[in-house]
Amino acid sequence: MGDTGEMYRKAIEIHRKFHGKIETMIKIPFRGLEDFNYLYTPGVAKACEEIEANPDEAYELTWKSNSVAIVTDGSRTLGLGDIGSLASLPVMEGKALIFKLFGGVDAIPLPINEHDAGRFIEIVEKISPSFGGINLEDIESPKCFYILEKLKNRLDIPVWHDDQQGTATATLAGLFGALDVVGKKLEEVKIAVIGVGAANSATIRLLLRSGVPGENIVAVDSKGTIYDGREDLDAGNYKKWIAEKTNLNRVRGGIMEAMKNADVVIAASKPGPGVIKKEWIGLMNEDAIIFAEANPVPEILPEDAIEGGARIVGTGRGDYPNQINNSLVFPGVFRGVLTVRAREITDDMAIEAAKALYEHARPNLCEDYVIPRMDELEIHEKVAFRVARKAVKDGLARKEMNDSEIRNEIDRILKITEEKVRIISDFLSSL
Amino acid sequence: MGDTGEMYRKAIEIHRKFHGKIETMIKIPFRGLEDFNYLYTPGVAKACEEIEANPDEAYELTWKSNSVAIVTDGSRTLGLGDIGSLASLPVMEGKALIFKLFGGVDAIPLPINEHDAGRFIEIVEKISPSFGGINLEDIESPKCFYILEKLKNRLDIPVWHDDQQGTATATLAGLFGALDVVGKKLEEVKIAVIGVGAANSATIRLLLRSGVPGENIVAVDSKGTIYDGREDLDAGNYKKWIAEKTNLNRVRGGIMEAMKNADVVIAASKPGPGVIKKEWIGLMNEDAIIFAEANPVPEILPEDAIEGGARIVGTGRGDYPNQINNSLVFPGVFRGVLTVRAREITDDMAIEAAKALYEHARPNLCEDYVIPRMDELEIHEKVAFRVARKAVKDGLARKEMNDSEIRNEIDRILKITEEKVRIISDFLSSL
Repeated sequence: MGDTGEMYRKAIEIHRKFHGKIETMIKIPFRGLEDFNYLYTPGVAKACEEIEANPDEAYELTWKSNSVAIVTDGSRTLGLGDIGSLASLPVMEGKALIFKLFGGVDAIPLPINEHDAGRFIEIVEKISPSFGGINLEDIESPKCFYILEKLKNRLDIPVWHDDQQGTATATLAGLFGALDVVGKKLEEVKIAVIGVGAANSATIRLLLRSGVPGENIVAVDSKGTIYDGREDLDAGNYKKWIAEKTNLNRVRGGIMEAMKNADVVIAASKPGPGVIKKEWIGLMNEDAIIFAEANPVPEILPEDAIEGGARIVGTGRGDYPNQINNSLVFPGVFRGVLTVRAREITDDMAIEAAKALYEHARPNLCEDYVIPRMDELEIHEKVAFRVARKAVKDGLARKEMNDSEIRNEIDRILKITEEKVRIISDFLSSL
Repeated sequence: MGDTGEMYRKAIEIHRKFHGKIETMIKIPFRGLEDFNYLYTPGVAKACEEIEANPDEAYELTWKSNSVAIVTDGSRTLGLGDIGSLASLPVMEGKALIFKLFGGVDAIPLPINEHDAGRFIEIVEKISPSFGGINLEDIESPKCFYILEKLKNRLDIPVWHDDQQGTATATLAGLFGALDVVGKKLEEVKIAVIGVGAANSATIRLLLRSGVPGENIVAVDSKGTIYDGREDLDAGNYKKWIAEKTNLNRVRGGIMEAMKNADVVIAASKPGPGVIKKEWIGLMNEDAIIFAEANPVPEILPEDAIEGGARIVGTGRGDYPNQINNSLVFPGVFRGVLTVRAREITDDMAIEAAKALYEHARPNLCEDYVIPRMDELEIHEKVAFRVARKAVKDGLARKEMNDSEIRNEIDRILKITEEKVRIISDFLSSL
């Protein structure tokens, strides 16, 4: 706890010193007051008229080309639970910082003080004109599913819930790498999915979409394995589709039963240790792969998993190898969709993002490196490229661009961002 | 029209080249990934907990200390009318640019696609946690009055409608200067107020609050002079209070009648020329002062007003002397309230802002200079100082600061902003 205390002290110190982490900045060279004739009244009226005549011109003439709202109701902030919208602001602002640093994206922290899902959706819809994308964050399950689906349907800009798609994409990337290391095929492995909240619901969807047969997936929630016919899964339950699509052999029991003869465990349930017992790993097939993603303490500690016989272990933590980290994903995903002005982010685009991470890692794959590390900053442009290309290919991009145009534009934006960040950082350090 | 066409062409060119005018930027020096332990998970959790325990800590630990939402429904954008929320975005973004350049304020353009006043208010309230202030913009009258009043009551952060308070404050500043030039006293002059929309309703309020006797003000709307007992002014009409507080002698008629024996005309009605006739100025007292603020064409052209006998003429335009310009006001007002974390912006604080502008101009006052020009950038810190000081004095500031603390803090923020803008501008020019 000494380390945590010191870390918290430094965290508060730096937040207090700078009063937050992001600000606005001009992105046009400002030469003098005469510029206002073009940037503000009277000239700006022409930009308004162009957009009124053709709404897509907003991408050409305003920051909508590069802006994302990070919205939350604060109902499930980090591991802190429902701390309300205001108290979640430091997390959203931190996310905005990462969006800028790694994706060159202008993200705005926008906690919304509304816990009713229907009204929350309406508010996000109404404030969407200024944004080229929406990032949902730290909204509790199950309402996060409803909110994401409704907003995806209602809005003509990408909507992403990072706790669903971001985590699922990172998990899939790690799985691609881990299977490569152990020499198993995605289509053949058996996967136990522990915990069926925001992250793992999306992970199951991506696994199915990537070619894992439904009968090879057994999901477990707090009541046990999920199977078609389980009594509590009535029509209104979001887990019903999981029951219909997975565990076709209707394995019953709990985590232990799900792990029997499994090749892979993907856990995103509740903080450990001890949620997954060391002995259970012995029930799995050889070369067992364990992703224990609960924070701050994984469902099973990596050293225990290895001792129990696992060959590869990934967690959500940066102090162990194989960190399954959303931050590997969302900056590139949004860089990609904003660059081609995509209308949405599909599961296929998320899978492309996972493949980009996997292919980056492939030359160096080993037990302790199944997914890129956070310090490999070049991953973001690779993720962005594949996501953008997929959007164009699938007819979801407003802006038709060929591969080299996409590459050049992403490269240009990230280079300029890097340079601006460097000169501002140098200036701030000199104060 | 040739000039306008060329100006519009350049306006579109620069908007298109940079895809808007503002972006986000980091405001902490970023040294490497290890910083994320403090800026993001896990350290950021401590900042959340501090705010949950004490909401005012959001000012210490997040960008709320310096952020403003520029909200509009786009119902009265510039002179373009109701062009909708998306098409108003270039104006809001331009305003955000001015907020940054002159006030060091982090303002976010946030058009809201909601025309119902009640729901608009609710949305602004719900998205307010991220912001230290709200700037309402380009919302049509009369609903703008209702929206401003409700939001002022409901929110514990400053809410400002620039088309009301901003214009009124600039007008008052110009009036202080003009009266000084002609040697008349505010308490003694007769004022004809032409047009009773957002701007002039607020102007009347500030005039009364500044000491102009109610019987000395005669307001005129499209139906004629406003007086107690006019039949259309029923209880639900926002002009009823004007009828009760002004024109106590119940002058009847139109603009001409209101101007008889007036010392000052303050017009913010509809584009001219010809709304105010040259001949009517001859009916006014000597040393007539005319503020004709309609855009793009004043109610009477300055050359005509002078020919008609006016001694001082102000307009909303930058190509004539004496520009009555909101941009002289709002950057400093928000710099002031954000610096001391004020809970609201009162009329008394607006009057302080007007006095700051007047006192800055005083040494050089003459017929063609009754209010500072836009290029006198030092006005913003003067406005900010007086507004902040007034907030502290009246017990409306969360942060108790003495005069020199206020001065130093405002000076520090504006200097850092200027420096950042300069280095970013230099970098952008080098691209």
